[in-house]
Parts: sequence; structure tokens; C-alpha cells
Amino acid sequence: MQYTAPLRDMKFVMHELLDSQAHYARLPAYAELDADTVNSYLEAAADYAQSVIAPLNRTGDIEGCTFDNGNVYTPSGFKEAYETYCELGFPAIAAEPEYGGMGLPTSLSSAVSEMMGTANWSFAMYPGLSHGAIATIEHHGTDEQKATYLEKLNTGIWSGTMCLTEAHAGSDLGIIKTRAVPNDDGSYAITGQKIFISAGEHDLTENIIHIVLARLPDAPAGTKGISLFIVPKFLVNADGSIGARNGVVCGSIEHKMGIKASATCVMNFDGATGYLIGPKNRGLNCMFTFMNVARIGTAIQGLSAAEFAFQGSLAYAKDRTAMRSISGVKDKGKPADRIIHHPAVRNMVLTSKAFAEGGRALVYYLSQYADIVAKGGDADGVDVKFADDMLSLLTPIAKAFLTETGYESANHGVQVYGGHGFISEWGMEQNVRDTRIACLYEGTTEIQSLDLLGRKVLGSQGRMLANFTKIIHKFCKEHEENDELGQFIRPLAKLNKQWGDITARIGLQGTQNPDAIGAAAVDYLYFSGYVTLAYLWARMAVVAKSKLSDFDANLDSDKSLHGDYGFYDAKVKTAQFYFTKLLPRTAVHVARINSGEECLMAMDIEQFAY
Amino acid sequence: MQYTAPLRDMKFVMHELLDSQAHYARLPAYAELDADTVNSYLEAAADYAQSVIAPLNRTGDIEGCTFDNGNVYTPSGFKEAYETYCELGFPAIAAEPEYGGMGLPTSLSSAVSEMMGTANWSFAMYPGLSHGAIATIEHHGTDEQKATYLEKLNTGIWSGTMCLTEAHAGSDLGIIKTRAVPNDDGSYAITGQKIFISAGEHDLTENIIHIVLARLPDAPAGTKGISLFIVPKFLVNADGSIGARNGVVCGSIEHKMGIKASATCVMNFDGATGYLIGPKNRGLNCMFTFMNVARIGTAIQGLSAAEFAFQGSLAYAKDRTAMRSISGVKDKGKPADRIIHHPAVRNMVLTSKAFAEGGRALVYYLSQYADIVAKGGDADGVDVKFADDMLSLLTPIAKAFLTETGYESANHGVQVYGGHGFISEWGMEQNVRDTRIACLYEGTTEIQSLDLLGRKVLGSQGRMLANFTKIIHKFCKEHEENDELGQFIRPLAKLNKQWGDITARIGLQGTQNPDAIGAAAVDYLYFSGYVTLAYLWARMAVVAKSKLSDFDANLDSDKSLHGDYGFYDAKVKTAQFYFTKLLPRTAVHVARINSGEECLMAMDIEQFAY
Repeated sequence: MQYTAPLRDMKFVMHELLDSQAHYARLPAYAELDADTVNSYLEAAADYAQSVIAPLNRTGDIEGCTFDNGNVYTPSGFKEAYETYCELGFPAIAAEPEYGGMGLPTSLSSAVSEMMGTANWSFAMYPGLSHGAIATIEHHGTDEQKATYLEKLNTGIWSGTMCLTEAHAGSDLGIIKTRAVPNDDGSYAITGQKIFISAGEHDLTENIIHIVLARLPDAPAGTKGISLFIVPKFLVNADGSIGARNGVVCGSIEHKMGIKASATCVMNFDGATGYLIGPKNRGLNCMFTFMNVARIGTAIQGLSAAEFAFQGSLAYAKDRTAMRSISGVKDKGKPADRIIHHPAVRNMVLTSKAFAEGGRALVYYLSQYADIVAKGGDADGVDVKFADDMLSLLTPIAKAFLTETGYESANHGVQVYGGHGFISEWGMEQNVRDTRIACLYEGTTEIQSLDLLGRKVLGSQGRMLANFTKIIHKFCKEHEENDELGQFIRPLAKLNKQWGDITARIGLQGTQNPDAIGAAAVDYLYFSGYVTLAYLWARMAVVAKSKLSDFDANLDSDKSLHGDYGFYDAKVKTAQFYFTKLLPRTAVHVARINSGEECLMAMDIEQFAY
Repeated sequence: MQYTAPLRDMKFVMHELLDSQAHYARLPAYAELDADTVNSYLEAAADYAQSVIAPLNRTGDIEGCTFDNGNVYTPSGFKEAYETYCELGFPAIAAEPEYGGMGLPTSLSSAVSEMMGTANWSFAMYPGLSHGAIATIEHHGTDEQKATYLEKLNTGIWSGTMCLTEAHAGSDLGIIKTRAVPNDDGSYAITGQKIFISAGEHDLTENIIHIVLARLPDAPAGTKGISLFIVPKFLVNADGSIGARNGVVCGSIEHKMGIKASATCVMNFDGATGYLIGPKNRGLNCMFTFMNVARIGTAIQGLSAAEFAFQGSLAYAKDRTAMRSISGVKDKGKPADRIIHHPAVRNMVLTSKAFAEGGRALVYYLSQYADIVAKGGDADGVDVKFADDMLSLLTPIAKAFLTETGYESANHGVQVYGGHGFISEWGMEQNVRDTRIACLYEGTTEIQSLDLLGRKVLGSQGRMLANFTKIIHKFCKEHEENDELGQFIRPLAKLNKQWGDITARIGLQGTQNPDAIGAAAVDYLYFSGYVTLAYLWARMAVVAKSKLSDFDANLDSDKSLHGDYGFYDAKVKTAQFYFTKLLPRTAVHVARINSGEECLMAMDIEQFAY
């Protein structure tokens, strides 16, 4: 598939929907960032993504990574593409200027990540994984640690990882076993095995800086006994040069369903030298400070998958002919009609389109809150606490809902191609394989759901949810008099009210039987996702309708469907499709929530199979 | 994953739910088939599937097929496994005794296919694909053709294929281009290229008999100008021995998402010698006579995928520990609780279980109608026309609904494993990759939907649907007084009525705008599938409840959950899960049907992307 960055829509969301200029103007750190500058970054990233890494997407999948005696070799072309990536400054765009970064906001880096990810997700993971290590050191490192690592990481000369998971411990980090024993010089000897370490070993950078979760000898059991350590692949000399090889080695790489060009490593730590970062036993707390941003990164994989499926299936549907349209011949010169004329094909293409564009709106919207959390502290009239609450609420929704709908879209992409969708050369099946992981890593859909319903919504006694439902309520009130918008506003207002109602009901049920919360959580997350996207689709429809009015008011305007008029008109039609064909799915989630936990818990464990 | 054939459930469905003995007693051809004989076939197949081909499932996926200069080599172990398959008589079980078959009913061969398919779908395709060729020759061959080919095919010494698809023509067979030019000796010279030919070339048999769709020089355009030809890989001498190599060669095999051990071939026919079978230009009609059985074969892939996911995810969920249960510690001796205690995991395991067991009931139910269509002609009081109508109605439902729910289940299988589900060694991701094709080949879900709604339901002016809704109505009436069954009967009766209502409404909309039918078809199919499975789940609950009453009436009975009591109790609980958590999905499909085609058709083709 030939990837084309959807710059028109990206600019629509950033500038027209989310008013990036007003947003940046409120934040001193970004106040200088005008729309032209933003656009020039977007266009540079689009150019690189389309021309350099998109062509490596399929070849990388075919070739995969190679493991040889502790070394990992990335597929052909990755090393050169990574060098160009660094030369163009992409590793540094979101990093702090103090250490060689460009200091650009998350709301811009998310858009760049979307393009890199849609073009070649496996490639994008190598620089992408450094962000966790960079954020850890930025937030919790000593000045010396910052000086030692940050500039090299920010320029991409070194890369970083997060080493959390162990074979027996995925999301349940409280039971990890990797140990850190103090050395005499203040460093620690780290011993244990970590699995599923993306970019744990590779041939793209001269050093790899691992952030490792481990237990001190006297650590309390569970999540309150975990500390963070910096464990470089090569120790760093006092002058910043590369020193001795450290005792951390890649034991093997996984054979997996997709993202085959991304090395997923088993990392063996055998008394490796590590440096404590952040306070002892507070490692998980330190990580939570930027976990939201990592999860936005995975939400972007869902958005990318939907965009990829949309572009691929649209191209095929506009080319492939099969059957005559049920409502009469559409393509007279051809032996059959193009399949884009068939309603079932349109349904699949429009579903991917609605999830891609809606997902884009959600990721960029959320990223603006991340900007405020990061840089709002000094700005008058910016409510950082409110933004932090919104970020906390919307992150699990974006992560789980966009990866699940991205995976659904990827499957529609295959389906539009019929049997050809199953064949590797078209790229659609790779999209399915690559995307499947997004619903699993960085916390599964089920874990995100418990985070949303348990920790965030009920854990804040409903405050975090009320923050958002008030925003939606206000928006609905603003437009309730507008007849043309009623098709969006009425269902949105109704669902918004229902959101509060079902939350109250689950909260009540949960006090009687805690399993009711676990039983409701996944459906609650889907419900929340559909309503959140409905809010953003309604807002997009409002903006597009207003632009269309401007065209209508000007008799000389160009109303061709190829130009802006057609773009805004399509935006309204896609909103109508979303409200008509996708939003009704909320009804099932409500019914499932209301039916409780009894039929889930009734079966005895020994009774499942005979 | 260690596959264990679910013999207890298979016997429950065949004997207790569907009363196989009464069914066979009505059909002279099968009247001798008693339950013990049926069970001995099931047990022999289970043994073979578990011990011979299940171990080759993952190795076959890793190794794949090899193409070398026109030859195709199957993965290690396949040749030996195929020899054993033939020695045990499996290729012949459904074939006519006149030509070396065992003459057993489809309702039994479906159960055997389920086990072969769950153990190793790729392997099962090699003998599976012969059935189309066998059926074509049985139904339409001359005596000479039958004598030449059938016994060798039935014993598995030769295999067969169906060569339909061309690169530009998938489901739209009316536009195929392969040509058949008469030779002087009454044979034809076949020239053209066919793609996606499963088992088109391989090393398992000494000859391969292709049934090829092609056009005669004077054939009318479209579907009414297609004829069928027998094109053997090696010509057959008058004495039945292998003769000269024919002009049909495998050009390449496809690189694809899954079923990698099954060779998907490009077949090039270059003046190959072919023999007309059936009347000229009536090839498609000839094929329709047994297309239902081929589609049941694909429906079984969906059932197999759900069973595979169920077994794999249950084993993991009963072993893996993570987090403490939200309702309190469940596994005291362990560092965390087994994940089977978590409601979200139970939901996924139960969903796969409900689709696997419900799908089994549907496939076996449908297969009994296939038995009647095949052998009911001579039996008094057996309504073959009615059975044929039921087979016609239920086949697209089974094919599309079971493959889609099988694919959903396969994905739940991955999800239960968390990140490990993405790793190849567990087998869960292979199940997803292998199953994805089932929603595509033998007619996509969208094609099945149009077949169901357009050709079958509306095409029969509602007669075919009314046949079935009357059966359901009668069942509901029979049990409406039973309070305990109300949880099943009430929703089923309501949906059964709604089925007729929405059909009438779509029929009316379709007369005004034919695109309304295309827009409704896929949702209509899902609705039909959920109601059909609800009927079968309600029937299973009735049978199970009756058995439980027997236990309750007998004070000395063994009510342990490990035995039959536990089995029937689990059956009722799974029915409750199906009605409570899965059946409500019908509401969305109804809403989508009711919302019509307008928002699907509104977008101009040029307007989808900018």
C-alpha cells in the first residue's frame, strides 16, 4: 500500500477543530509556535514517513529481525532510515531543549508519531521506546544522570527501553522477582530476566539505556517494593565515552504474530551494574507520572491501523470490480461495477474512516491536555489539575478503544480485499498482525477498563467523569437550538446523561458485589469510547457545517467535491455515518452492563470443560 | 495447545439434542447406523486427530509449503499422516459405497471434520478439497467418468480440487475468462489461469483431479456460459493407470496470513486436456447442487476455531496467575489468583465456549438436513423439499455467522493470554491467522449475507424463513408454560417474531430502493445467526434441564461437578450466559437495519479521501 499522510485532515483537527493557536498561546513554553511552523513540521514528517520508512514496512515484515549470539540485526534499510531520522531531528522533537531537544509539545509529536506509525509501526518503535527512558530520566534523574544520558538519547545516538515484564508477571508488576543488590560504590548489581522488551537489543545505536524495575533486598512485598534502575548496555565513562560492556545480554527474540521488524527481546541481567533513579521502593509511582504519555503512544497505533486500513481498502474498492450494483449498473464501460458502489463495502470503508478520523481527533484532543500537564504550571488561568484529571480519564479510553477499533478496522481492510486480503503482498493482513499487539501491550483492554472504571471513575467518586460530562453537556446546550445539528446533539445529550446513570448504578452494585465492577468494566470502556468519539464527531460536524455555510454565503466560492467544500461536506457525512451506524452499538454495552455479573461467575472452575 | 476432542459434547449434540437414532431410522440408507457405531467412528477420528495431526499443526505453520519449479512439498510429517488417514478409511466415509466409499451420512462426517479441522485445519484441507470433485463426479459424471475417478478419489490415492477463481473474478464467476476449445477426440483444450486453488499441487497423492470452470467458444456471456471440465494432472490410461502429464502446472504458491501448511496455488492451464462434465453452459447450476455441503465445510472452520480458542484459553486461564480477584483472595497459596477468577477473563472463555457449543449444534443440525436431502428420496414421510429449503436457508447463516464468531473467539483466545497470546509458541495467534480466511473463501460474509437475504429469504417470498420461524414458534409454544424456561423462551419468542417483522420491512424498503437490501444484509445475517443459535441453545437448555431433573429425582445419583450432572448443569449455565451476554447484540443489528441505506450511499466516490 502507498501511504499518503492525511495532512488535510490532520490540519483540520489541530487547527480548525482544536484551535491549536489559542491552545499554544496559553502556554508560555509553546507560545511562539505558530500554525506555519506546526505545518512545516507535519510536512517534513509526512515526507520522511512516506518516502523513507513506508517502503520498508513490508520488506521489514518479510525479513524480520535476526538473532545471533546475543546480537540483534534489524531488517535491511532500517539502519540507514534511522540515521536519516536522527539527522532530521525527529528523536528530539518532544525532548527538553536543555538537553538537546526541540521542546515541541506532545500535541505535535503525537501527529508526527501517527505518520511514522502508519507508515511503518515496527520501525517507529525503535525511537518510540526511548521516550519512556527519556521521560524517566527527565523527571527523576539526578543532574549527573541527566547530563550523562539525556543528550545522547535525545539525539538518537543512544536508545532506551523500559524493562518491566517478567515471564510470570505481566500487568501484575507487584510480583516481579528481579533483584538489585547494593555495590560498594553506590551502584547496584541487577540480576533477573525480563521478557517482551521491545528494542532491548538492536544494531541501530551505539548504546542502549535500560530502565529496569527491580527489588532491593529489604524491599516490602508487592507494588510498594519496586525501584527503578538505569542499566546501560555499555557503561559510560566520566567523559561520556562508551566504556565496558555491562552484564545485560539479549537471550533471544520472540517469534510472534506481527511487528516482526521490531525486536522483542528476552533480556538477561546477570549482576549488571545499575544506578538507582528516583526514590527507593517508589519505582511504580515514578512510572505513573508518564505512563499516560506511553499509553497515548499505543492509542496512536490503533489510529494508525484504522488509517492504514482506510487508505488501503479505499484504493482497492475504487479499483476492483465485482458484480453489478443491486440498484443498477454504475460503471458502464466495465464488465462489473467497482465494489465501492456496494453498500456492504461502503460500510466497511466508512467504518475505518470514522474510526481513523475520530481516533485522530481523540488523540490530538488528549495530547493538548498532556501539553497543559507538562507546561501549564506557569501559565495564568490554566488549570493543570483539571487537565491532569482529563488526561487520566481519557487515556485508558483512548488506549483501549482506539486499539480495539483500530483492530476492527484492520480486519475490515482485509475483508474489502476478499481472498486477496489474506495474501501478504497487499499489506492488509500485515496490518491485522501488526495491530493485534496494541490491544495487549501497555496494559490489555481488560486492564485499561479496570483502570478507567475502578481507579479513575469510581476511584475519584465520579469527579473525573463529571468533569468531562459537564464539558459535553455544555457543548450540547450551546447547540440545542440548532435544528440541523439535532441529529448529533440529541443522541449525544442522551448518552451523556446515560453515562452518569450507568456509572452510579455500577457504583451501587459494586458496593454489594465487587465482581459487578469487573463484569461491567470492558463494556463500560466501550460505552465511554463511543460517547467520547460521538462528542468529537459532533464537534467536527459543527465546525464543518459552519465552514460549509461560509461557502454557501459566498456565491463565487469553489464548491467542487475535490476541494475544501467537498472535504467539509464529507466530514458531515462521516459524522452522520458514525451517529447512524456505529453509535447504536452503545445499546449492547448498556444491556450487558445492566445484566450484571451473575451469569459470568456462576460456573465452577472445574465445570468449564469435560 | 494439546487438543482434546470434545467427545462428551459431540455425543450430547448428536444423540441427546438431535436424536440421531430417530433421524437415521427415518432414512433407509442410514437405518443400520446405531449409536455405538457412530461413537466408534467418533472415537477413532478423535484418536487420529489428537495423536497424528494435532502435533503437526504448529510445525506445519512454521515450515509451510515449499514451491520448486512447479512442484509443491507439504511440511514434514504431512505425507505420513496422510497415508495413515487413508489407511484408516477417512477419505471414504461420506462417499458412495458403489465406488469404494463407506456411505456414511454428512451428519457424521461433519463431526469427523470438526475434529480433523480443530486439530490441524491446514492438513484437513488436503482431503477436504477432494469432496467438491467427488460430489461433482458423483452427481454429474458419466458412468465412465465415475469408474475412472471415483474409487481413486474416495480412497485418497488421488485428490481433487475445484478451480473457480481467477485473478479478476472472485465471487463474480460470470466474468471468468478460462477457455475450453473442442478437440477432435471429444475432449477439450483448457487454457487460462486459476488462482487461490487449495491443494492445487502437492506431494501427497499420485494424481490430482481438477474440476475447472471454463467457457466454450460459443458460450453466452455471464453466468449462463460456464461449463465444467475434469482436468487431471496426469491423464488416465484406459486401464486406470497413470498416463502422460497434462498441460496444467502450478505457477506459484501464495504467501499468506495463515493456513501456511495448505498450498494455495496459481494453476496455469495451457491447452490442458479436459473432459466436459455435466451439460454445456450449465456449470454453475451443477455446482450449486452441492455448494451447501462445501459451505458447511467452511462453517466447521469457524466452529473449530472457537473450540480451539476455548480449549487453549481455558487451559491458560486455569494456570496463569495475575492480580487478586476484586471480590477477595481466591487462590490462597499462590502469589496472585488464577485469571479464571476474573470476570473479564470468564467472559472471553465463556464467549468462545458458547460459540463453539452453539456452533456445533448448528453444524450438526444443518447436517441432518443435508442427510435428508441426500438420502431422503425413498423414505416415507420425509419431506426432502422442506429439508432442502432448510439447508438452503441455514447454510449461509452457518457459514458466515460461525466463521465470524469463530474469528471473534480466536481473538479472545489470544486476549486471554495477554502478551503471550501474540507469541507463536502458544498457538493462539496461529488460530487467528488460520481462521481469518474462513470469513473470505467460499463466499465472503458479505456474499453469504446477500445470498441469505436476497436469494433465499426474499427470493422465496419469505417461505424459507417462515419454515424455520414456525419451527421456533412451535418450540416456544411447547415450553411457554414452564416458568424455569421462561428466561430462554420469552426472549426467543420475541426475537422470532421480530425476525419476520424486520424481513417484511426490508422487503418493502427494497422495492423502493434496492440498495436498502444491500445495506441491511450483513446485519440481517448476524441477527439471523444470533436467533438461530438462541433456538439451539434454548433446546440444549431444555434437554439439559430434563436430565438434571432425572438426577434430582434419584437420591442416589452422582451429582459431582466432574460427571454428567456437572456437564448438564454447565450446559444450562452456558445457555444463560448466551442469552444474557451475547443475544442482546441483536439490538444493534436491528437498529442498523432500521437506519437504512442513506448514510452509506451519500458519500461521492471522489469524496472519501483528500
